[in-house]
Amino acid sequence: MLKQLITTFKNFFPAPEVSAHCDGPCGVYDPASARIAAEAVVSMTKKILELEHPDIGNKSAMIEYHNTLSRFVTIKEEQAQITKDELLILWTDYFKPKHLEQYPDLHDTFWKAAKLCSACKVEVSSQHANELMDAVHKIHDMFWSSKEKDVTWYKAS
Amino acid sequence: MLKQLITTFKNFFPAPEVSAHCDGPCGVYDPASARIAAEAVVSMTKKILELEHPDIGNKSAMIEYHNTLSRFVTIKEEQAQITKDELLILWTDYFKPKHLEQYPDLHDTFWKAAKLCSACKVEVSSQHANELMDAVHKIHDMFWSSKEKDVTWYKAS
Amino acid sequence: MLKQLITTFKNFFPAPEVSAHCDGPCGVYDPASARIAAEAVVSMTKKILELEHPDIGNKSAMIEYHNTLSRFVTIKEEQAQITKDELLILWTDYFKPKHLEQYPDLHDTFWKAAKLCSACKVEVSSQHANELMDAVHKIHDMFWSSKEKDVTWYKAS
Amino acid sequence: MLKQLITTFKNFFPAPEVSAHCDGPCGVYDPASARIAAEAVVSMTKKILELEHPDIGNKSAMIEYHNTLSRFVTIKEEQAQITKDELLILWTDYFKPKHLEQYPDLHDTFWKAAKLCSACKVEVSSQHANELMDAVHKIHDMFWSSKEKDVTWYKAS
Amino acid sequence: MLKQLITTFKNFFPAPEVSAHCDGPCGVYDPASARIAAEAVVSMTKKILELEHPDIGNKSAMIEYHNTLSRFVTIKEEQAQITKDELLILWTDYFKPKHLEQYPDLHDTFWKAAKLCSACKVEVSSQHANELMDAVHKIHDMFWSSKEKDVTWYKAS
Amino acid sequence: MLKQLITTFKNFFPAPEVSAHCDGPCGVYDPASARIAAEAVVSMTKKILELEHPDIGNKSAMIEYHNTLSRFVTIKEEQAQITKDELLILWTDYFKPKHLEQYPDLHDTFWKAAKLCSACKVEVSSQHANELMDAVHKIHDMFWSSKEKDVTWYKAS
Repeated sequence: MLKQLITTFKNFFPAPEVSAHCDGPCGVYDPASARIAAEAVVSMTKKILELEHPDIGNKSAMIEYHNTLSRFVTIKEEQAQITKDELLILWTDYFKPKHLEQYPDLHDTFWKAAKLCSACKVEVSSQHANELMDAVHKIHDMFWSSKEKDVTWYKAS
Repeated sequence: MLKQLITTFKNFFPAPEVSAHCDGPCGVYDPASARIAAEAVVSMTKKILELEHPDIGNKSAMIEYHNTLSRFVTIKEEQAQITKDELLILWTDYFKPKHLEQYPDLHDTFWKAAKLCSACKVEVSSQHANELMDAVHKIHDMFWSSKEKDVTWYKAS
Repeated sequence: MLKQLITTFKNFFPAPEVSAHCDGPCGVYDPASARIAAEAVVSMTKKILELEHPDIGNKSAMIEYHNTLSRFVTIKEEQAQITKDELLILWTDYFKPKHLEQYPDLHDTFWKAAKLCSACKVEVSSQHANELMDAVHKIHDMFWSSKEKDVTWYKAS
Repeated sequence: MLKQLITTFKNFFPAPEVSAHCDGPCGVYDPASARIAAEAVVSMTKKILELEHPDIGNKSAMIEYHNTLSRFVTIKEEQAQITKDELLILWTDYFKPKHLEQYPDLHDTFWKAAKLCSACKVEVSSQHANELMDAVHKIHDMFWSSKEKDVTWYKAS
Repeated sequence: MLKQLITTFKNFFPAPEVSAHCDGPCGVYDPASARIAAEAVVSMTKKILELEHPDIGNKSAMIEYHNTLSRFVTIKEEQAQITKDELLILWTDYFKPKHLEQYPDLHDTFWKAAKLCSACKVEVSSQHANELMDAVHKIHDMFWSSKEKDVTWYKAS
Repeated sequence: MLKQLITTFKNFFPAPEVSAHCDGPCGVYDPASARIAAEAVVSMTKKILELEHPDIGNKSAMIEYHNTLSRFVTIKEEQAQITKDELLILWTDYFKPKHLEQYPDLHDTFWKAAKLCSACKVEVSSQHANELMDAVHKIHDMFWSSKEKDVTWYKAS
C-alpha cells in the first residue's frame, strides 16, 4: 500500500517539476518568523493574565484598563494568526513528499500546531501558549534537520 | 498503536472543550468561499492563455497587453492565495480529530489541494487549475457529508 | 428625461466597451461571498448578546469574558466590512446601466444594504443583523434573475 | 410617492439614531483621501504611456523596463482601488437620506465614479483618469457644500 | 567632518539617480493623508474619554458600552498606525539628503512624531493626541515650504 | 546644548513612562524578521537577472516568462516593503533616546537602510540588494549589542 501511495505521489508531483511546485520561489524559508510571532503570543498572554482590574468607580483607570486589555487581545490574535500563517507556509510550500517519508508525523505536527494557534486566540491560556512555543521549537528542529544545517534555537524575549 | 494515537489526541484536545478550540467561533464554514476563488483561478488562467501578443512595433497595443497580462497574473496569484487560505481554515479549524477517523485521507487531500494552489501561481496551467477545482469539489463533498447536509455543487461562472 | 439619461449613459459607457469596464475581468461574481459574511455577523451578534457577565471578583472569568467579547466584536466588525465590500463589488462592477432599467431600485437596495453593514458594526442588534441577511437574500435573487439562472438560496449555519 | 419613500426611509433610519448609523463614528471625512489616490492614478497612467520599450536584444534594459512597467501597473491598480474605497465610504457612511433630496444625482455620481476607478485599472487611459479626477472634484464640491464649509480644491502633484 | 559626511552621502546616493531612489515614483506626496488619520486619533481619544460606564446590572447597556469602547480603541489603533505609515513615507521617500541641510531637525521631528503615534495607541491621552496633531502640522509646513508651495492647513473635523 | 537637548527629551518622554511609549508592548523585537525579508529581496533580484527571455514567437514560453517575471517583481516589492516596515518598527519603537547617545548614527543608519529598500523596488540591482543586506547586518549588531546579548548572525538561504 505504501508503494502504491508513493506511486500516486510520483504521478501527482512528477519528479523534475517538484521544485517548481514551491510557492515562494525565493527559497528563503526560516521558522524564525513563526518563533517571533509565537513569542509575542506567550508575552501577551502573560501580560493579560497579570493585568489588575481597577476600582470600577475610577473612570480614567477603567478606560486605561480597557484600552490596554483590548489592545493586548488584538495583538495576541494577530500574532497567533501570523504564527499559523508562517507555519502553514512551511507545511504547504517547503515540505515535500520526500520529507513525509522522513517525518511520518509531519501532517499531525502541523495540524496540532495550527490548532494550538487557534486555541491561543480563543483562550487566555499560558499552558497552550507554551505548548505552541514547544510545537514551533519541534518544527524548527525538523526544518533544519531536513536541510542538514545546524541553527541554534534562541528566543528574542 | 491507533488506540494510543486516539488517547494522545484525547489528552491533547479534551472532549468537553473540543468546540472551544475552533478559531472562528461563529460556526459559519462554507467551502463556497474556496470554490469562488478557485473559479477565478481557472478563469484567469484561461484568459492569460488566450491573450494574443500584439505586434511589437505597436506601442499602445503593447502597453494594453502588458497592463492586462500583469493584472491577470496578479489576480490569479491573489485568488489562488484566497483559495489556499479558505481551504486551510477548513482544515485547521473546522475538521477535528473525530473526522480523521471518518476521512483517513483528510491531511493528504488538503496538502495536495494547498500545493495545487501554489502550482497555479507558479505556472499558467489549465490542467493544474482544473485539478484544483476538482480538489475543491472533493472537499465540498467531504465537508457537507461530515455535516450530513445535502448542498448542491454549482459554479458561478 | 429618461431618454436623455439613457443617452448620457450610452455616451459615458459606449456600448462595445461595456464589458471592459468591469473591474474583475474574470466574470466570477457570486453573492454567496456576501451571504457567508452576513451569516457570521448574525452569529456573532447572537453570541455577544448571549454572553453572561461573570462575577466581577472572579479575575480569571473576567479575563476570559473580555477576551471573548473583544474577539467577537472584532469578528463582527470584520465580517460586516466583508459583507459591505462584497456587496459593493456587485454594485460597482457586475451591475451595468442596462440592469438599472430592469431593477429601478438597484441603487437604493445597495445603499440601504451598505448602511445596514455599518449599523451592524455600530450596534449589537439582532434586528439589524437579520435585516442585513434579508437584504443579501434580496440581492441574491436580483443577481441570479439578472443572469437568468436558478440558484437555490441556502445558509451554511 | 415621494412622500411614501420618505416615510419608508424614516422608518428604516429612525430620526434620533441617524448619526449612530454612520460607520466611522469619528466624524472625520475628507474627500482629500480620494483626491490624493486619484492623482496617483493620473500620474501612473501618464508614466506608463511615456515608457519607451527598449531594444529587445538589450537584456538588462528589458528587465528594467518590465520591472518598472509591472510596478507602475500595480501602483495604478492599488491607487484606483483606494480611490474607489474612499469614495464609497463617503457614499455609504457620510451621505444620508436627507442629502439625497439635496443632491438627486448622488447615487448616479458615485456609481459612475466607482466605475471610472475600475476603468482606470482595466485600461491605460489618460481620458478616463482625467474623468476620474473630474468626478472626484465634483464630489469634493458636493461634500463641502453639504457641510456649508468652503475648502479650496488643490492638487499635490 | 560635515564635508566628509556630505561626500559619503554623495557616494551613497549619486546625484543623477537621486530621484530614482524615491519609492513611490508617482511624485504625489501630501501630508493631508497623515492629517486626516491624526484627526481621527484625536476624535476617537475624545470620544473614549467621554463614554459613560453604564450600571453593571444593565446587561444590554453593558454590551453596547463594550461594543463601542472596543471599536473605538481599534479605530484609534488603526488610525494611529496610518498616521505613522503616512509620516514615514514622507521621511523615507520624499525627503532627500539635500533637505537635511535645510531642515537639520528632520530626523528628530519624524522620530518624535512616530513615537507620538505609538503613545496614542498605548494610552488614551488627549495631550498626546494633540501633540501628534501639532507634529503633523509642523511636518505640513516643512513639506510645503520644501516645495515652495503655499497650501493652507485646515482640519476636516 | 546637548544638556538642553537631553532635558527636552526628558520632558518629552518622562522617565517612568518611557517603556510605556513602546508601541508593541510585548517586548519581542528581533531583527531576524527584517533579515528574512531582505534575503528574499536578494534572492528575487538574482533570479530576475538570471531569467532568459524566450523566443518571441514561442507563445507558451512567453506567457510562462511574463508570469514568472511579474510574480518575481511583485515578491521583490512586497519583501522590500516588509524589510522596510520591520526596520522602522525597530527605529520608532525599540530604540529610545538613551540609545541615541550610544549610537549617534542611529537615525542616519535607518534612513539609509529604508532608502535602500525603496531602491531595491525601483531597480533590479544586485548591488543595492547586497547593500541592504549589509545594512540589516549592521542593525542586527547594533540591536543585540544594545541588549548586551550575543546572537549569531546567520542566513537562511
